[in-house]
Amino acid sequence: MSPKYAIGIDFGTESGRALLVDVADGREVATSVYAYSNGVIDESLPGSTVRLEPDWALQDPNDYIEVLKRTVPAVLAQSGVDPGDVIGIGIDFTACTMLPTTHDGTPLCQLPQYRNEPHAWVKLWKHHAAQPEADRINQVARERGESWLDLYGGKISSEWFFSKTLQILNEAPAIYHAADRLLEATDWVIWQLTGRETRNACTAGYKAIWQKDAGFPSRDYFAALHPELADVVEAKMSREILPLGAKAGGLTAEAAAWMGLRPGTAVAAANVDAHATVPAAQATDPGVMTIIMGTSNCHMLLGRERVQVEGMCGVVEDGIVPGLYGYEAGQSGVGDIFAWFVEHGVPPLYHEKAKARGIPLHALLEEEAAQQKPGEHGLLALDWWNGNRSTLVDVELSGLLVGATLATTAPEIYRALLESTAFGTRKIIEVMTSSGVPVDRIVAAGGLPDRNKLLMQIYADVTNREFSVVRSALAGAVGAAMHGAVAAGSAAGGYDDIFAAAAKMGGIQDKVYRPIPAHVAIYDHLYAEYSTLYDYFGRGENDVMKRLRSIRRSVLAS
Amino acid sequence: MSPKYAIGIDFGTESGRALLVDVADGREVATSVYAYSNGVIDESLPGSTVRLEPDWALQDPNDYIEVLKRTVPAVLAQSGVDPGDVIGIGIDFTACTMLPTTHDGTPLCQLPQYRNEPHAWVKLWKHHAAQPEADRINQVARERGESWLDLYGGKISSEWFFSKTLQILNEAPAIYHAADRLLEATDWVIWQLTGRETRNACTAGYKAIWQKDAGFPSRDYFAALHPELADVVEAKMSREILPLGAKAGGLTAEAAAWMGLRPGTAVAAANVDAHATVPAAQATDPGVMTIIMGTSNCHMLLGRERVQVEGMCGVVEDGIVPGLYGYEAGQSGVGDIFAWFVEHGVPPLYHEKAKARGIPLHALLEEEAAQQKPGEHGLLALDWWNGNRSTLVDVELSGLLVGATLATTAPEIYRALLESTAFGTRKIIEVMTSSGVPVDRIVAAGGLPDRNKLLMQIYADVTNREFSVVRSALAGAVGAAMHGAVAAGSAAGGYDDIFAAAAKMGGIQDKVYRPIPAHVAIYDHLYAEYSTLYDYFGRGENDVMKRLRSIRRSVLAS
Repeated sequence: MSPKYAIGIDFGTESGRALLVDVADGREVATSVYAYSNGVIDESLPGSTVRLEPDWALQDPNDYIEVLKRTVPAVLAQSGVDPGDVIGIGIDFTACTMLPTTHDGTPLCQLPQYRNEPHAWVKLWKHHAAQPEADRINQVARERGESWLDLYGGKISSEWFFSKTLQILNEAPAIYHAADRLLEATDWVIWQLTGRETRNACTAGYKAIWQKDAGFPSRDYFAALHPELADVVEAKMSREILPLGAKAGGLTAEAAAWMGLRPGTAVAAANVDAHATVPAAQATDPGVMTIIMGTSNCHMLLGRERVQVEGMCGVVEDGIVPGLYGYEAGQSGVGDIFAWFVEHGVPPLYHEKAKARGIPLHALLEEEAAQQKPGEHGLLALDWWNGNRSTLVDVELSGLLVGATLATTAPEIYRALLESTAFGTRKIIEVMTSSGVPVDRIVAAGGLPDRNKLLMQIYADVTNREFSVVRSALAGAVGAAMHGAVAAGSAAGGYDDIFAAAAKMGGIQDKVYRPIPAHVAIYDHLYAEYSTLYDYFGRGENDVMKRLRSIRRSVLAS
Repeated sequence: MSPKYAIGIDFGTESGRALLVDVADGREVATSVYAYSNGVIDESLPGSTVRLEPDWALQDPNDYIEVLKRTVPAVLAQSGVDPGDVIGIGIDFTACTMLPTTHDGTPLCQLPQYRNEPHAWVKLWKHHAAQPEADRINQVARERGESWLDLYGGKISSEWFFSKTLQILNEAPAIYHAADRLLEATDWVIWQLTGRETRNACTAGYKAIWQKDAGFPSRDYFAALHPELADVVEAKMSREILPLGAKAGGLTAEAAAWMGLRPGTAVAAANVDAHATVPAAQATDPGVMTIIMGTSNCHMLLGRERVQVEGMCGVVEDGIVPGLYGYEAGQSGVGDIFAWFVEHGVPPLYHEKAKARGIPLHALLEEEAAQQKPGEHGLLALDWWNGNRSTLVDVELSGLLVGATLATTAPEIYRALLESTAFGTRKIIEVMTSSGVPVDRIVAAGGLPDRNKLLMQIYADVTNREFSVVRSALAGAVGAAMHGAVAAGSAAGGYDDIFAAAAKMGGIQDKVYRPIPAHVAIYDHLYAEYSTLYDYFGRGENDVMKRLRSIRRSVLAS
């Protein structure tokens, strides 16, 4: 039998990428990227003078189709692989990225009458204009004692599905009523590929308050939010929820033609970038935590049971791999904090040094910070520059640095910031563990692990755990391809479940970051200090961070 | 009668300056500076290969004589004033700056046999190598329940007289025994001018634990410190303590010849830079606080009674002006913190902007910070980058910043740092007031008030008090000259007391910084937050700052 291949397509914030991998061993054969022609739409609508409000972030669904049309033929051409040997396709996407469509899946923004209507377009994950709606969703849920609220850390985010949906209804009721369907963009792409509307368990669970046993929130709850929202689920949302790795269908003739693939090629249920990474990291067993480390950290952990864990982003059955509960937690600022510091807190001396040596400033700071011993700088930070997602679920918290002296230098502060995010991750691991979800092994993925070795060593030292790193730099696309191979099934040369696919196609790097005992001992002391400040500033003993924000707001409003 | 003049000579850290002023109105007629040829000696002894330990800072007493020889003739020549019309001389000095001499006042470092002995030289105020001795002084005082300890905020500094003296005895007993006299450099210069050894009440009181009623600490106390120290006061120190403004004597023929003045010209008792500023600021009444604002802040306040005030640097009768109690408090980091930030925390963008506009970076940051409304940046800092002198008297405390977000900018942090020092000053004013030492009026002096108008407005807003600024940029030298005029007395065309001299020769600028009510209201909120953190981190509720330093020390030692 000739070698078989699967294609994973990763839809990011600025671009989409296809990756063709060998189904036997996950070898990456060819890849191609297409930058969205309309990118992130945050100033004015394409071809229009309609300006967007601050905090808006939209996308053009046509860009997703262009990704299919351009990148898949490119990887086929590059590799010379026979389309007949491509047994399956999977995709992964940002989330919650959602849009309104007609019955047949036509995005409203593609209809001339809605082209100049911002609410007709795709709302990107980082569209942050639905905070009033999120506040109302949380308030009504608390008032009604909705039991699902605790599964989401007690708070639904403004980024999530029903916040965005309610914003459409509040601000553009005509669009809401014109929308026959409301769905995740990742499910929309699968619809375009297969001709069949489905919903994946991952985004349904983590972003749209769906639970396998209880379904979506009740009609009464939605009616309490807004009378016209009462039937949103029945009227506008598919309730066919596919577990990850399920086959959504086969390629339509039209979609196959876009890409140069065979009609009927297996297409997996839609997926999300972080969650697709888990099988690529061979982290499909209970007790293995995958941490996507980038601008923020996303922690995914599999468990056999559903328990309450303080401050989770969500707990979803089948949400990461079928048959297990997927726990997701997060730190809302990680790489973003380092980037902030590099932009706002580093004096010219280091910029000049980095320039003279032809290395990025980040790399220089890492090098200088690596020369310090743990505890040497005398600093401690709370990693809340962008609020705290887990375990406190509080966007009003803010960054703190203590221990500064007249001798403190920028590389010392940089190291303290790296450490602070490691303390934040330890906090999440500890709350998981103490809640009854064991963490036996950790695999890191995302952009940071390969770029900052010091950061990885600090994470190992602070958590006193070994850190592996996923093998592929394109782990989301690899995971998507694996789901494609599972959708194809073993009879077609694929796999019958994601566990088998992970074992063959996933992988971790040889390099393992092992805790250094002398560092662990010092970081235990520093973590104890971090925890004291965490509780003092984060749990109501001193709400100075919230009051500072409140004073700021009232000053700006006056 | 021809106009009469007085000369004030200000001995600073790097240089000495003479100022010739008109006794009638304080008009500054001529000035001249001499940079010490040996500057601050902190690496190796002059003309020697003897290296100094870290934290050492010495001076060469010959540099002081050179100041006299060079600057006084220069101001006479510049002004054309007849030496016969110079009725008095006063000096002001850094403190505690001290040295060992023979019976006749010859500095030991000028004797060939001691020239290569670091302990034979002048120990400058910022010689910081006597911390073990300060620790012992404090420990023994606490154990013995010495009543004077509370008058110095419960802690004697490593910078002070007996810390430095004990270091000589511990590390170089031969020098200690060879020293017939141990005295402040300011008193030594007066000895060189008048041929008479005296001790001024100011340095005796604030630096050498002398109180007008109780004298120096007891022989028993010194014996407990070190058996050979038991007779240090009787054997090596003048106990003739002159109040400020007293006449120490008349110029000797030799000293008069150095300077081109008449022998017998009145010479005032020695003085200290900060304290000499008080009459120059016309702040000689009870209830007027003078704040010298520079690298650190020094707060001086006169009161009619001696009461306990938490965390004072000292309370000394006659210590600032005769007949009143002089309260001194301080903030150990002010301009130093701003300078640290400008060096270590400001990205290239602002450096380039300042350069393009040809203004100092400080000025650019002040300008950008001035565009923010109080409370707008959402930040709060504890101004402890260099520890806290008053009211907590704790060098182990460190700097803190809270409220940072991904949108925080360098000018915002800069403003938060300015504000933090204003909160620190408000804390000192409040503890003075609540202890029964009223603060009715404030005059600022030092390098900062004329350089940073935003800082002055913030101080006015935070304290809800008007801030005046001393008229002269050379206020220490003006104050020294005023003491010279008082030493001369009214019969010679001078004044009979410092109050009369201050009324005529001192002055404040027309510009007064008045609190802006809207700002006061916001700063009241922010000050409440500052106070909560001040107590939490400063009074033992969370000693994280001390533990961070302790961890740092043990890491560095390992």
